[in-house]
Amino acid sequence: MLMKHFSDRLLEASNQKRGPVCIGIDPVYDRLPKSIRQSHDGGEPDTIAHRINAIDQFVRSVLNIVAPHVPCVKFQSACFERYQWPGVQVYRRLIDYAKQLGLMVIADVKRGDIGATSNHYTAGCLADCRDQDLGSLDGPDALTVSAYMGIDAIEPFLEHAAQNGKGVFALVRTSNPGGDDIQRLRLEDGRTVAEMMAELIHNTGSTNSYVGRNGYSLLGAVVGATKSQEVVKLRQIMKQQVFLVPGFGAQGGRAEQLRSFFNDDGFGALVSASRSVLYAFDDQVPDWQPAIQQAVIDMKEQVNAVLAKNYHINSNGLKTKQPVKNRRGT
Amino acid sequence: MLMKHFSDRLLEASNQKRGPVCIGIDPVYDRLPKSIRQSHDGGEPDTIAHRINAIDQFVRSVLNIVAPHVPCVKFQSACFERYQWPGVQVYRRLIDYAKQLGLMVIADVKRGDIGATSNHYTAGCLADCRDQDLGSLDGPDALTVSAYMGIDAIEPFLEHAAQNGKGVFALVRTSNPGGDDIQRLRLEDGRTVAEMMAELIHNTGSTNSYVGRNGYSLLGAVVGATKSQEVVKLRQIMKQQVFLVPGFGAQGGRAEQLRSFFNDDGFGALVSASRSVLYAFDDQVPDWQPAIQQAVIDMKEQVNAVLAKNYHINSNGLKTKQPVKNRRGT
Repeated sequence: MLMKHFSDRLLEASNQKRGPVCIGIDPVYDRLPKSIRQSHDGGEPDTIAHRINAIDQFVRSVLNIVAPHVPCVKFQSACFERYQWPGVQVYRRLIDYAKQLGLMVIADVKRGDIGATSNHYTAGCLADCRDQDLGSLDGPDALTVSAYMGIDAIEPFLEHAAQNGKGVFALVRTSNPGGDDIQRLRLEDGRTVAEMMAELIHNTGSTNSYVGRNGYSLLGAVVGATKSQEVVKLRQIMKQQVFLVPGFGAQGGRAEQLRSFFNDDGFGALVSASRSVLYAFDDQVPDWQPAIQQAVIDMKEQVNAVLAKNYHINSNGLKTKQPVKNRRGT
Repeated sequence: MLMKHFSDRLLEASNQKRGPVCIGIDPVYDRLPKSIRQSHDGGEPDTIAHRINAIDQFVRSVLNIVAPHVPCVKFQSACFERYQWPGVQVYRRLIDYAKQLGLMVIADVKRGDIGATSNHYTAGCLADCRDQDLGSLDGPDALTVSAYMGIDAIEPFLEHAAQNGKGVFALVRTSNPGGDDIQRLRLEDGRTVAEMMAELIHNTGSTNSYVGRNGYSLLGAVVGATKSQEVVKLRQIMKQQVFLVPGFGAQGGRAEQLRSFFNDDGFGALVSASRSVLYAFDDQVPDWQPAIQQAVIDMKEQVNAVLAKNYHINSNGLKTKQPVKNRRGT
């Protein structure tokens, strides 16, 4: 039986949790609450086992806190990979745990290689794990990929995603300062490299079997929250793509810039915040969980405020309410 | 104490082993010798433990076979990541084992993300592992990265490499068919995206502290073996870069095309073959190791034949012998 389409699931989950938002799980040991970093004797052993156990404990709490509020979390694989195989083990178990809590999970891994290799990455980074020794661990619902090597470098991910109701987000325009180095170069026809990447992603993603009932493709795009002036154009090129918008909060993205990331139907973007939520607590206050919960609620409200200004929200989800005024381009 | 510079070490090792070649370790369970795939009762349990143990055994043998002949091996991380944390454990132990055999090791991971995240990847994918529980495992000497997100996405790797005598190979031009999708797009100034990436890599790599005594940078470039017609130009842009040239053999690269990958001094490229060596054996023949050894020797001879045609090889390494005739471009 084919799983329900990824973008349909994501849209339903966003409606159910009343907000197209995503919390980035980027745990950094040194920023964890002191109470979690300290072992029983008050020390902090400088071992991988200690650090990854602390991260495990912290992330489980965070997942419990955010699960009632958001449809989706995004795991930053690098934060776990730095702790070698114990890190990868905790990473996979936490993803499975997030799934058990009803969250959708995006694996932020930014993989991409020749087809044969991307096939291996599909098995490693996207597929469910069913093994008699390791157990049954649900994999993420989607992953991030890089298509600098071309569309054939991401095809294995797409094929697996299509068969398993999963999704793929390809890097198009990123929010870091160096994102300009390549992505903003202008081609001889006037388009930027990012716009050309957007065309490729759109064309590839519009394959019939990749498009869900709501009209969105299982192939989405990573479009950074700091680049809203370019987003209008990318949105025009990639009408069928869900935009994964990282960098809301810590990386400088602002709520008022968000409007252009959404389609006229009020769908089509998933706004992600990581550090501004995970580390919202004051470490002088013993009870750190409420601050994280409040940060999630605040972030969701900020995003919904933007949407409410532009759309009428009814029980079926979000609908266009007023003509879009700040739309530029042709 | 600072470690000796990466490119100096690589050049010395290439001279010592008499060939600038690299064997790609891309183990795929289904292609392993039957004798390794079968357990004692003749069966092949479909478990991760069985598969990764077989791969472990195979790769150790391959490393033993190739170590006397080549300076360097390149591990394809994806082939191990597909087996989750047991795969990563075997991967790290095999890298350490290769180092013990005196091989230089490139981790083919193609990572790259915003700086904070690349910092985590540096710890996970490039640094040595020193941990009281996991033990002391030498990390690879270099890794492959993607700079689609810009130079700041690869800076953490470069800083660690500079401090630790390690290296970084950035994707510039890849040998897969889809490599054209982005890399060959033409910019308004007439350059291709790959050439612009080459400029970026050259400029970044020419930082004083990044350049070794031989004039080569610790920041090299991945330039696929099937694209030799474009290589002349890339070679002109990136004189200080060592080119990592994958795809020799199975991906269609041919020895006679190799000349243009090298600088006029006969240095500056590391030619890599994976499948054509690893799976050179005939599974009907019980003793599979000699075929792999022969394939390594053959591959090295092919590369050296190209070099010998163009250079005089003396005891200090390779020197220019004759003017380069097939040089194109300006």
